[in-house]
Amino acid sequence: MNDMKPLAHRRPNSALLERLKSVVGPKGWLDQPGDLAPHLADWRRRFQGKTPLLLKPATTAEVAEIVRLCAAAQAAIVPQGGHTGLAGGGTPHDTGDEILLSTARLNRVRALDAANYTITVEAGCILKQVQDAAAAADRLFPLSLAAEGTCQIGGNLSTNAGGIAVLRYGNARDLVLGLEVVLPDGRVWDGLRALRKDNSGYDLKQLFIGAEGTLGIITAAVLRLFPAPKERVTAFAALRDLDAAVDLQARCRAASGDSLVSFELLPRAGIDLALRHIPGVADPLQAKRDYYVLIELTAAAEGSDLRARLETALAAALEDGLLADATIAESAEQARKLWFVREGITELQKYAGVSIKHDISVPVARVPAFIPRAIELCAKMFPGTRPIAFGHVGDGNVHFNVYQPEAMDGGAFLAQGEALSAAIHDLAMELNGSFSAEHGIGRLRLQEMRRYKSDVELDLMRRIKQALDPLDLMNPGKVV
Amino acid sequence: MNDMKPLAHRRPNSALLERLKSVVGPKGWLDQPGDLAPHLADWRRRFQGKTPLLLKPATTAEVAEIVRLCAAAQAAIVPQGGHTGLAGGGTPHDTGDEILLSTARLNRVRALDAANYTITVEAGCILKQVQDAAAAADRLFPLSLAAEGTCQIGGNLSTNAGGIAVLRYGNARDLVLGLEVVLPDGRVWDGLRALRKDNSGYDLKQLFIGAEGTLGIITAAVLRLFPAPKERVTAFAALRDLDAAVDLQARCRAASGDSLVSFELLPRAGIDLALRHIPGVADPLQAKRDYYVLIELTAAAEGSDLRARLETALAAALEDGLLADATIAESAEQARKLWFVREGITELQKYAGVSIKHDISVPVARVPAFIPRAIELCAKMFPGTRPIAFGHVGDGNVHFNVYQPEAMDGGAFLAQGEALSAAIHDLAMELNGSFSAEHGIGRLRLQEMRRYKSDVELDLMRRIKQALDPLDLMNPGKVV
Repeated sequence: MNDMKPLAHRRPNSALLERLKSVVGPKGWLDQPGDLAPHLADWRRRFQGKTPLLLKPATTAEVAEIVRLCAAAQAAIVPQGGHTGLAGGGTPHDTGDEILLSTARLNRVRALDAANYTITVEAGCILKQVQDAAAAADRLFPLSLAAEGTCQIGGNLSTNAGGIAVLRYGNARDLVLGLEVVLPDGRVWDGLRALRKDNSGYDLKQLFIGAEGTLGIITAAVLRLFPAPKERVTAFAALRDLDAAVDLQARCRAASGDSLVSFELLPRAGIDLALRHIPGVADPLQAKRDYYVLIELTAAAEGSDLRARLETALAAALEDGLLADATIAESAEQARKLWFVREGITELQKYAGVSIKHDISVPVARVPAFIPRAIELCAKMFPGTRPIAFGHVGDGNVHFNVYQPEAMDGGAFLAQGEALSAAIHDLAMELNGSFSAEHGIGRLRLQEMRRYKSDVELDLMRRIKQALDPLDLMNPGKVV
Repeated sequence: MNDMKPLAHRRPNSALLERLKSVVGPKGWLDQPGDLAPHLADWRRRFQGKTPLLLKPATTAEVAEIVRLCAAAQAAIVPQGGHTGLAGGGTPHDTGDEILLSTARLNRVRALDAANYTITVEAGCILKQVQDAAAAADRLFPLSLAAEGTCQIGGNLSTNAGGIAVLRYGNARDLVLGLEVVLPDGRVWDGLRALRKDNSGYDLKQLFIGAEGTLGIITAAVLRLFPAPKERVTAFAALRDLDAAVDLQARCRAASGDSLVSFELLPRAGIDLALRHIPGVADPLQAKRDYYVLIELTAAAEGSDLRARLETALAAALEDGLLADATIAESAEQARKLWFVREGITELQKYAGVSIKHDISVPVARVPAFIPRAIELCAKMFPGTRPIAFGHVGDGNVHFNVYQPEAMDGGAFLAQGEALSAAIHDLAMELNGSFSAEHGIGRLRLQEMRRYKSDVELDLMRRIKQALDPLDLMNPGKVV
């Protein structure tokens, strides 16, 4: 994969490498090929890089010292969290001259303040660990996504992760009250405030959230917590058509008193592939329709009548012809089975061959316009491909994965897919959407940045980058 | 009031003034002292400025042309919305060389998408107008504050306004999906996206929200809407003590399924002053305690059992000794009367003499530590003053207003108050708080910025300012 911008940093010499090792001590670095390998290829294996040294600092002070030394030597740094990103943002280039900095050992929960509904965590905490710490205090940390057992909160914040509860709780950005960041020159910005209101100057934390490590390294954060859900209702419905999805979402939101947390679209074609490839997936409904939704509502108090409300709303939608059929889970186990169908569609890529992925968003009401037109593009431009549109339709976020024709070679398919991707992205942009809804830019979407962003917007981003990282040492060649 | 930084822009000459007038046409400018006067003193009359020309552009293109001409002539611009700010951010300096740009004629609601829960408005829309447009579509725009009949949404966004529903819906920042901004060089950044998820590069809109017009002029915004509340429960409770406030808030939040919208603190001393000075204020409860809270919950669906839930929670709190007494409004009229007590405390300043105001925040659990210590400081440093602590305690935001001793001259009081303010702010900062929770910096808090912000933080802000407005022409001498 060709990146767009020449990288201007210097190759670290052996004196620098030795000094860096001494900062973190013997347990804090790796430089043997076998040890480095898992850190050098991204999860989707689209990018393969090299590094002379992987550092695992255990404290913010160590991160700061590493960055200071690298800045003095004009050496570049690639920060890496759980390395579960889908856009190659945490993978070094193959030039072999970037230092890799893992946040894995910055993994303490520093504080939890239940009365203030906040938790203070270091960047290397696994997302699941943060969720569990909150739950132990009868609180909810609502960020939830497929990689939650592996991804690190620092990476979640650096990529402004989305996931399955955005409809109710927002993206990762919305869950942050404060940050601690090591800046590109090695200074530490202590912005670890735990305040709901703080209008004292520019909101600097916003710069680092979603910047994919290009403006500094997030080392810790104060996160918002919520009351723990006491009740949960999960349902599955077969839709008349895609328009019905938009209507049904508004009905569920209104009927439940805005308690809708997830509203996930599943296509029949995806369910069929999952039934074929993934053991344990079962068809939740008899009715065969092109699209289904998985609906989840939660209540933070017991004795809610969420279930009754949802039943009433679904019955009315059935009556009005929006639905062909629907089921509400009778137990946590049944709910788990419904979610397993949704997760199966994510897992498909392991079984159903190579796919070209798109992570687009459009205004919610335009989802029914986007999907059939995108499918039509596939049929026209690349007959035999198998498009699967699924995702967080409640946020207007559609994962549009196009699987290879069954008989075709995967590599040949990917090589020919570029024009198709451009057409899919063009369509999303035509509908006032985004070509990257939740996965970010990394190295994967640099071309799209240049294609779709206005000169004004790119110029603003470059000015910010230049203002904070004038030597272009922080995760160079990513995002901007 | 002395500002800290020399202003570097040039005085506009008459040729520039004439060209600017021709951009907006005969109805688009004012330059006579009588017409200008209301625009030159801030609402609290702490700042008095001058301008050679007030411009009222009617379109974004006119704003852009004005800014382009001013940039070319190195003339400074002060953007002004409803001019209800409390920190002097919208008032020009008294040098008389800054152009004043009012957004009042940029007042169209451009679009409302009920299915997408969004509204697109121009900067000069009055907040109330935005609320009403949303309500007409059975939606809620939740930002609500005392000045809502006068303030403009552009000002609300530029100051990241807070208000009485932050607990449930967040600050103004949290309600923005997209912005249109005229940059300091006159280019227009079209970031008017209506997307719940968009991770395509740095989140530029965050820079302009809360920047008080120092990085560009917000001309339009896409705002988030919510389901309209169908039920509302309002209550008033006399607290055992301040600790009980924190405990009661957590109980209300949990018992109501996180439906708590407002949780406002009122001190006995403030209620007594309101009873004395403001006709129509009535004491809601017999029990006399030092502190009270006004509680409001809403449900987005009818048939909620919010009222029963709150009754149960309040009864338990009474039983457990957290409360001395409580009442739940039986009608909208009764609820209005409870809110009238709260509003009376805001209005006190018109009747109870001059006050030194502080708008601090601390982590919620530290509110009970802050208030008595701040009152003690007043008694020690300035005997005879009357401190009134009230506000949005659910967000940790305390308005701490210190009224003059009854017999003292107002001017003499203000002059002597600086040391007291410093001590109050020191205390808030000691408790990991903020010296400006929701009112912003403007000109009022420049000294505090230098006193409390770290060198690193100030340096980052200045780099951002320099990157976007290198000539320092946008609202110079404010914020940074």
